[in-house]
Amino acid sequence: MNTAAAVADFRRYPLIFAMTAAAPLTDRVHVTWADGRTSPFHHPWLRDNCPCAQCVYSVTREQVLEIVDVPEDMAPSTIHLDGEGCLCVDWQDGHQSRFDPGWLRAHAYDDQSRAERLANKPRRHLWQHDLQLPVFEHAALMDDAEALLQWLLAVRDIGLTQVRSVPTEPGSLKQIAQRISFIRESNFGVLFNVQSKADADSNAYTAFNLPLHSDLPTRELQPGLQFLHCLVNDADGGESIFVDGFAIAETLRQEDPDAFDALCQIPVEFRNKDRHSDYRYLAPIIALDALGQVSEIRMANFLRGPFDTSVEQMPRLYHAYRRFIALTREPHFRLARRLEPGQLWCFDNRRTLHARNAFDPASGARHFQGCYVDRDELLSRILVLQR
Amino acid sequence: MNTAAAVADFRRYPLIFAMTAAAPLTDRVHVTWADGRTSPFHHPWLRDNCPCAQCVYSVTREQVLEIVDVPEDMAPSTIHLDGEGCLCVDWQDGHQSRFDPGWLRAHAYDDQSRAERLANKPRRHLWQHDLQLPVFEHAALMDDAEALLQWLLAVRDIGLTQVRSVPTEPGSLKQIAQRISFIRESNFGVLFNVQSKADADSNAYTAFNLPLHSDLPTRELQPGLQFLHCLVNDADGGESIFVDGFAIAETLRQEDPDAFDALCQIPVEFRNKDRHSDYRYLAPIIALDALGQVSEIRMANFLRGPFDTSVEQMPRLYHAYRRFIALTREPHFRLARRLEPGQLWCFDNRRTLHARNAFDPASGARHFQGCYVDRDELLSRILVLQR
Repeated sequence: MNTAAAVADFRRYPLIFAMTAAAPLTDRVHVTWADGRTSPFHHPWLRDNCPCAQCVYSVTREQVLEIVDVPEDMAPSTIHLDGEGCLCVDWQDGHQSRFDPGWLRAHAYDDQSRAERLANKPRRHLWQHDLQLPVFEHAALMDDAEALLQWLLAVRDIGLTQVRSVPTEPGSLKQIAQRISFIRESNFGVLFNVQSKADADSNAYTAFNLPLHSDLPTRELQPGLQFLHCLVNDADGGESIFVDGFAIAETLRQEDPDAFDALCQIPVEFRNKDRHSDYRYLAPIIALDALGQVSEIRMANFLRGPFDTSVEQMPRLYHAYRRFIALTREPHFRLARRLEPGQLWCFDNRRTLHARNAFDPASGARHFQGCYVDRDELLSRILVLQR
Repeated sequence: MNTAAAVADFRRYPLIFAMTAAAPLTDRVHVTWADGRTSPFHHPWLRDNCPCAQCVYSVTREQVLEIVDVPEDMAPSTIHLDGEGCLCVDWQDGHQSRFDPGWLRAHAYDDQSRAERLANKPRRHLWQHDLQLPVFEHAALMDDAEALLQWLLAVRDIGLTQVRSVPTEPGSLKQIAQRISFIRESNFGVLFNVQSKADADSNAYTAFNLPLHSDLPTRELQPGLQFLHCLVNDADGGESIFVDGFAIAETLRQEDPDAFDALCQIPVEFRNKDRHSDYRYLAPIIALDALGQVSEIRMANFLRGPFDTSVEQMPRLYHAYRRFIALTREPHFRLARRLEPGQLWCFDNRRTLHARNAFDPASGARHFQGCYVDRDELLSRILVLQR
């Protein structure tokens, strides 16, 4: 059994269906599987994915071969299925490749195989005000890999979670965030303190209400996850409010497709500047992935620059922007909770917009700490925990 | 003179042309300037950009007004130009706005004004093997804000620079990178050591040649700037090679537009995985900005996963990929230099692909340190230095 391919990417590729036949065509090998599916594999694809020790360096599991070093018309001289069910290709230049059937099926690119992989991708769960909030216990997340995985899957698929019984010493947030990976630094520091300050360099550091927003829309890549940890909360007001930005975007797409398109197409500048920094980034408010699914909301009214689009588009943009903001204010989208000391929010900053009611700094102390971890780190950690 | 707007974003908006007239239309105000240009400003745009202390919090310079709090059909009751040349708008609800003419001209969105701003954007300089390498002295960059600015402009517009007379103590790289901003951490650390290792977790940490690539194509946002600092280089071989990925992409666009389109359209997965991490990211190799200009190259053959596209597209993708790689190998694109101790490269990791010739670890020691700083930080630092 050729396990080189499986080792090569830290995954197992169990045999699901055997290959029953492999037929050589002019530009490809045509494989038939035990369930009747047929998968073409073009010659360059097979040569490029040869898992042998000459083509892949076994220590790093990284490819050494570059396909451009093989002639463009390289073809097999013979192919066969061996006694262990592997596809063996003898190339015209004498090179030999051997493909494990589990690996080959997992990477087949016939329409049916591709549709199957797509259907198996994780699905997000859209939510409204009545979300059953996913709550996790700090001690379990620190000790138990399975609890950690369940938390991270909820962050990925729901985008809003709460953790309880977190120590209230300043800096405690670091340990729990580092259960995922390193923290993403910003000009506000590694951990940032959310307190009302006289010399605030952002409205976040005042006692004002903050409208629903994503953090750091002024950066090319908005932080993936945001943590907000409550150390002290003796002040009146200051409740946290969340909406599922993806649910709002989908609602807008249904009720006013042109407004939705405007927010997907017209770039808007977000800005954050103080004496030492001057961040500006221009992007549409709604980003779509390659499948047309909403993949990101970029929104913070207080960090937005003047709209700069053509005279023809300007009324359309204002109409769409107003409608989006109006939707974020509809009660059936809004989940409101007061965070108590020892609790923290962990949410998808690019999906779940967050807001804060105004609080009264004269009524008592209020001290939250926050930090960011990027989506890359979340997804990597999930894959490692799932191995 | 109303300077609130100018203060609001740490820029000065000098008066270039005065307003000579402001005419009220149904949905907009029509401004005429002393040079004859005319600029429409829609009512919501004017109300949204009111710089008064009620609408913008003066300490943070961030907007408090949300346009959705103003009726969609809000219109001026009267408008006039005051004695200081400002546009004054009295709104139907009694609110008053006053717009500085320098600020208003800088943000006008008539076609001519928008084209003018576009034309004034920084331009990249494409290069080939005969680039006059921009070289900077470490001491000047550490002390002199003007030298620092010149360096950062070269990084932004050319994408490849060298710094000389850098101390060769390990960690010295940190100080120079932090002249821009904080360093972007990765799973390889804050500073990474480029040395040949027996237990390499990337081909970068072997003595192999490395083909032309960008670093961390496995992450959603590839690092903006890469630094490589030479501490010791007694080994034979190991020359650095650079190509301007944007120049190569433009060449491909000219000679084979369909291959160019394939690399812009078909996403490719890049992977980097070890015992503790499993990063995967799917994106096209060439990214374009909103104007159709090449804005990013994502490329590392040794981190690439199997191509996964439709049967119809697969030969097209292989053809395009081969052609791109073949272009990176053409001598007239390639600049090769051996880095000596005390020298460092700082280059645009998303534009300037880098390679390393194989070296002979038995012939002598070789120790480089590297780190990353993101494009956001570079652009912010340039804007602050230019104030």
